[in-house]
Amino acid sequence: MKYLEDFQVGQVLEFRSKPMSKHQIKDFAHEWDPQRLHMDEEYAKGIHGGLIASGFQTMLVVFEPIMRELMVDVANIGGIGFDTLRWLRPVYPDEALDIRLVVDSVTPSRSKPDRGVMKYTLTARNPAGETVFSTETPVMIQRRKDDT
Amino acid sequence: MKYLEDFQVGQVLEFRSKPMSKHQIKDFAHEWDPQRLHMDEEYAKGIHGGLIASGFQTMLVVFEPIMRELMVDVANIGGIGFDTLRWLRPVYPDEALDIRLVVDSVTPSRSKPDRGVMKYTLTARNPAGETVFSTETPVMIQRRKDDT
Repeated sequence: MKYLEDFQVGQVLEFRSKPMSKHQIKDFAHEWDPQRLHMDEEYAKGIHGGLIASGFQTMLVVFEPIMRELMVDVANIGGIGFDTLRWLRPVYPDEALDIRLVVDSVTPSRSKPDRGVMKYTLTARNPAGETVFSTETPVMIQRRKDDT
Repeated sequence: MKYLEDFQVGQVLEFRSKPMSKHQIKDFAHEWDPQRLHMDEEYAKGIHGGLIASGFQTMLVVFEPIMRELMVDVANIGGIGFDTLRWLRPVYPDEALDIRLVVDSVTPSRSKPDRGVMKYTLTARNPAGETVFSTETPVMIQRRKDDT
């Protein structure tokens, strides 16, 4: 199990997203974000050259490896939210994104000695090397008991 | 179709989210955010008194009526991201959230006369009246052609 003390400012971790198929993009849009750019290939072709994923789905595929490969082994008390989040370019079907996590700060709580906040930046690049997504996000994590 | 000019600062719109069942909370967690708080009822009971939804799923259920009832009729060029987003309290199964959208600013682009940015705040309250989620988010919207 990883605790707050196991993260250091400047630390970099790399992940890769699962590509979204056309079918998955349309299904997701139908359920959560029914806009034509995510559902209607002909319409999207005229604007972006083809179907593009909902930004909400891009966010999920970027965070999925973070949650599944990293956070399940972290004594995290809970996500706090996003300080910023930006969809910078369209994401198309069948693109796996290269994800870079950089630890920005690690701050023990002043009022609660058992915890602290780790802030990190995530950026995701498409196969052409363009940054398509970025976010700065804080998460509350337990401190190691024998350190307090 | 609604354009940038159809939004005014201070305008308020109200929505209601679809409640998430236990089954939907677990299924979502399994696919996107496999943490015990969202999958293991016994474990979650000890910490939050019961199973709680992934913050990502809360975000989706809050935005879903905005996208389906409002944005499909808006000439929106695209989401930009979130300026901030906060998960303030746990969301439990079968809770419908009362959602309030407030228009914070409406700013025509200086460089591109066909568009502008509308920023809005969303807050979601649970059936007990507690605010569980908030976000400030900008969206790029077309201006009405006969106004330019």
